[in-house]
Formats: sequence, C-alpha cells, structure tokens
Amino acid sequence: MTNKKSLKSALHEVEGIQQPATTNDSSIKKIKRQRRKQPTEEEFVEKIIEGDISYLSRAITLIESTNSNHQKKATAILEQCLPFANKSVRIGITGVPGVGKSTFIEAFGKYFTKQNKKVAVLAIDPSSSINKGSILGDKTRMEELVKDQNVYIRPSPSGSSLGGVAQKTRETIILCEAASFDVIFIETVGVGQSETAVHSMVDFFLLLKLAGAGDELQGIKRGIIEMADAIVINKADNDNKKYAELAKNEFTRALHLYPPKESGWQPQVTTCSAIYNEGIDTVYKIINDYFNLTKSNGYFEKHRNEQNNYWFLETINYQLITNFYNKKRVKEGLKKYKEDIKNLKTTPFKAAQEILKLSKK
Amino acid sequence: MTNKKSLKSALHEVEGIQQPATTNDSSIKKIKRQRRKQPTEEEFVEKIIEGDISYLSRAITLIESTNSNHQKKATAILEQCLPFANKSVRIGITGVPGVGKSTFIEAFGKYFTKQNKKVAVLAIDPSSSINKGSILGDKTRMEELVKDQNVYIRPSPSGSSLGGVAQKTRETIILCEAASFDVIFIETVGVGQSETAVHSMVDFFLLLKLAGAGDELQGIKRGIIEMADAIVINKADNDNKKYAELAKNEFTRALHLYPPKESGWQPQVTTCSAIYNEGIDTVYKIINDYFNLTKSNGYFEKHRNEQNNYWFLETINYQLITNFYNKKRVKEGLKKYKEDIKNLKTTPFKAAQEILKLSKK
Repeated sequence: MTNKKSLKSALHEVEGIQQPATTNDSSIKKIKRQRRKQPTEEEFVEKIIEGDISYLSRAITLIESTNSNHQKKATAILEQCLPFANKSVRIGITGVPGVGKSTFIEAFGKYFTKQNKKVAVLAIDPSSSINKGSILGDKTRMEELVKDQNVYIRPSPSGSSLGGVAQKTRETIILCEAASFDVIFIETVGVGQSETAVHSMVDFFLLLKLAGAGDELQGIKRGIIEMADAIVINKADNDNKKYAELAKNEFTRALHLYPPKESGWQPQVTTCSAIYNEGIDTVYKIINDYFNLTKSNGYFEKHRNEQNNYWFLETINYQLITNFYNKKRVKEGLKKYKEDIKNLKTTPFKAAQEILKLSKK
Repeated sequence: MTNKKSLKSALHEVEGIQQPATTNDSSIKKIKRQRRKQPTEEEFVEKIIEGDISYLSRAITLIESTNSNHQKKATAILEQCLPFANKSVRIGITGVPGVGKSTFIEAFGKYFTKQNKKVAVLAIDPSSSINKGSILGDKTRMEELVKDQNVYIRPSPSGSSLGGVAQKTRETIILCEAASFDVIFIETVGVGQSETAVHSMVDFFLLLKLAGAGDELQGIKRGIIEMADAIVINKADNDNKKYAELAKNEFTRALHLYPPKESGWQPQVTTCSAIYNEGIDTVYKIINDYFNLTKSNGYFEKHRNEQNNYWFLETINYQLITNFYNKKRVKEGLKKYKEDIKNLKTTPFKAAQEILKLSKK
C-alpha cells in the first residue's frame, strides 16, 4: 500500500536518463600531452623576451609553484631574463575595498595603452589563500583592459605568508619587464601589511581615497599616508564633487605637516572620477613630474639600489626559512615537538634549540 | 702691554685649584671585582626562584646581551627556570604617547600590590635603539611603583629588529614568573607593529584611549581595536568626563559590530582617571571576569598553547637568521655582494643564492 515509488507526492521526481560525461576523453589526453611537453628554459626565455604572453604566464606559474623542480626552472629562467629587466616604471596602487581600484586601473591603464605603452597589472593579496576572494581574481571588473593586447593582468599569487607572496610578485615583475612591459601596476588592499611589501618594490606609491569617509571607516593606517607619493580622491563626480574638493584641501594641508621626503618630492593630492574618465590626465602628469624629478636628482637610481638591497636580504631570509622547513627531519620533528609543547613536556625555546640541532645532523 | 693673563676683563676667571677625581679608585676596584665574579647558573636560578631582584636583573641583562657566552648562560638559566614559570597573568597595555600609560600602570599596579600581589612591568619598544627615547626609560614617571618592593620595572630591551626585542621580552617574562611575579604588564606604544608582538605573548590585551581625539590623531590602527579585550578611556576627569562617556558609548557600539571572539569574551569598554585613581576597580573587575571566563571554558590553556607554538616557530626563524648572519664568511660576502648589486654586476636573487651556497661551505 505504501510503495514509496508509486506514491504520487508533489515531491516525486521522474528518474532521468544517464547524462554524458562532462569531460571529453580526447581533450583530456590532449591537455595531458601538452602539459608533459614543458618548454626548455631557453625556449621560455626566448619567447618571454619576444613578449609572448602565453609563455610569460606559464613562467609565472612556475614561479608560483611549490614544486621544487618548477622552482629550479623558474630561478634559471629568471636569471636569464635579468639583463632585459629593470626598464619599466613600477607603480603601487593601494586603497580599501570599494574605493574603486579596478575602475581606476582600467582608466589609468588605458591612458598608457593609448600611448602604445604595454601595461602589466599584478596584485599582492596575502589573504587570497584564506578567503579565496583574491583581488584581481575577477578580471571581468576590468572589462576593457582585459581585451587589450598590450595589457597583461595577473591575480595575486596565493601563499600562506606575505613574505612568500611578495617574493613571487617581485620575481614576476622581472619577467614582465623582460617581456617589455613599460608600466607595471601593483595593486593591494590597504588594510594589512601588504602595502609595505608593495611599497618596497615600486618607484611610485599611489593611495586611492574616497571623499567623506573618515579614516576609521576607510581602515587606512596612518603609515600608509606617509608612504604615499600621491593621494587620489576617487569618485569625484556628481554630488560627490564638492566633498572630494574639501577632502583634497584637507589632505594637502595634512601632507604639509609631514617631514619632507628623501626623494625631494612633495606628495600631491588630486581628485578623479575613474568611472567617468575625469582627472586621469592630472594623475598622469603628477607621476610624470615625479619621474622627471627623481631621475634627474639621482633618487630613482638610489632608491632602486636600496630596494635591491632590501630584496637581497629578504630573499636570503625567506630561503633560509623555507629550506629549513622543507627538510624531512624538520617536518617530522615539528609534529613531535608541537605535541610535547602542548603536553607541557618542553618549552618553545628548548624545542627550538633541539630542532635546530636536529636539522644539522 | 697686552699680557692676556693680567687683562682685567669682565670675562676674566681666576684659575681654581685642581678638583679631586669624580670616581673613587677603591670603589672602581670593588665594582670590577664584583663584575668579574659572575654567579654560576645554579646560583642565578636559586636566587631568582627566591625572588631576588638583583639576580633577576642581572639574568635579564644576560638575555639582552649580544655576547654569545652571555647568551649561552642566559639560555641555561632560562631552561632551569622554566618549571617555575607559567603561573602569572600577563596583561598587555597599549596606547599612543600621551594617553597616560605610565600613570595608568602606576594606579593599576598599586591596585594589585595592595592585595599583596607582585607586579612586573616590562616594555616593548623597537624604536628605543634608534631614538634612545625608550618607553619606561624614565622610571621617575612611576614614582610610587618604583619604590614598592613588590614591583619590578624593566625598560624595553634595545635591538635593531622587533623580532629580537620581542624574543628577549618573552624570555624575560619566564624569568619574572620564576621569581614569583603574579602579574606581568607589558607596555607598548600603539603605533607600529610592536602591539602585534605584545598581543602574541599576553593573556589579556588592554587598549588605552583618550576621549575626543579622532583615530587619525591617536594614530591607532584599526587592527588594534580588534585585538583589544578591553578599551579603557583614560583622563575621564573634570571637563573631560562627559566626552569620555560619549566615547565609551561609541566604542561599545563599534565593538558590537566586530565578529565574536574565539575566547567567547565580549570586549568591554570603560572609563577611568588614572591620575585621580578613579575607575581602576572597574578595570580590575573586567580583567577578573575575563580570566574567570577563559579559565573555565578552556580558552586560557588553548590560547597559551597557541602562543607557545607561535613562539616555537618564531624562535626557530630568529635563530636561523641570526646564526646565518653571524657567520664570518657571510659577513664578508654581504659587503661584496651589496657592492656588486650597487654596480648592477649581479641581482638580489642571484646574490642571495650565491651567499646561501657560500655559507654552506
């Protein structure tokens, strides 16, 4: 009487026919075959220098890989690309979510491409591995740039530590420069320590702001304002225009209270409306003035040398730590010692000394 | 005619008699003799556990020393003190200069000592080595506490890196606990990354604020508010009282917007006037409630274990890097490679790989 199959409930579903596989066997084989056929280092370098975006992309994937063979190959490619690097201008762009970074980069990027410049857009977002909501992950937010042949957009590498993510981005800059990109934007969200990392690898640091929002709301650290070479108040359109002007005056006054910069540059404040493409020319002029000044007074060279020194030490520290934790003995030891620390059988200091000794055996 | 000696000018000074030496030879000998006579590790440990402040101080000096023999001795003392540690409550206190940290610690410390508790006051100020203006350096700001036999005040260790400074403070906590201090305050200024370091070594994190000052002015990062277990609005006296109440309401509302804490604790906001000794009892009650809650729901233990794990890894990383840069070969190599980087003869990555290889020889 209660045969479930025959019960004509409103929730009853008719069983459908079997669906075809969602993947195509011959496609899978083709993909595998191509993957196996990795280009040589020399092929990579040659193609990157020609400006081949597909090879550039694949080389960046090697940089981002955690596989040690991939890393070795990436290092070799990097070294051979170095003589062709160092020729772009590197511009850091920060601002909290909602300030309009993508729209600004779209408008500003187009300003460069119209002058036949090649533009690469990179990002540093150490949180991307946690919340998966990587900035730049959604390329559709830069609708027009993404279609431009002279533009290369790459989302933030993922990684558990900011140091690692920054390292990879720094190396990616070198590859993009070898591929003849003239301008490199590096985007980050101004809420963590990532903007310090970006600041350490760019020539010019641009802070995007909104009018009317207090700093508490915008979540921008005081230190970031000190880093900025320009503050651009975005969304200066319609009813917002007068507030943007007020904010501009306020920031201009505030910036004068900071001590002069080593570069000799007085940070500038301007307004723009990225979505209506207004004020972008002023931003361009500011950046141009900056490069004219710093290239003539020697600061540009000096600053890049300091950044190189910084990255020299950062690379050493990062490698020291990565090499250590990759040792099999250390991996095993870590588990054991963490358990011992938990059970109060040992202390952090003692355990650290012991695992350091262990790793040397 | 113009014999200078005999010229009776208004600026003429009669030569005085020779002054006695400002130091006493026999005193100098005595000091040198005592210095030479370093106590043994066992003497140190025994005296520290007895609560001998003078030995505690000297052991902390060993921790802070850069001399490798001193460091070895410090590690040995530390290890033997460990079974006696872990019994205090550790309270972090942060706030920008001018918020009244010293006055607050003085008032709050006395609240504990009146209950026959022993109070240690430490500090983390990574800038102290640069501007020499160490917080807590001026003990006279805690006039009454400094005279109390149950109080030990120690200024921030100096050091070039926050990691090193934090490491030393963390070790100092252990020694203070072994010397039976019941409460350990760790003070820091809320403007850099030092408060993150302090947060990683305390059970309770207290943020001192002023009424009326915007966050931009107070220079407090948004992240610090998220870390706070209590926000105490200081200087709530006289005309300031009503502004302090307004600020209290504002912060209370703001804190409710943050996601709940893992500890299950809802951060509290209160006002006080440290200088008039008002509201200190409420702060005490809040902290007491916190410890009652977290000790009963298991968070206290869990949190300390997480902190231990964090310090386990931090100690390893710090040691790896310190050991590396202390190698003679590395010191020499660094100079050479920095020069090569400057002259664009090599790149940061390549130089880093080479110096890492060099160090292994």
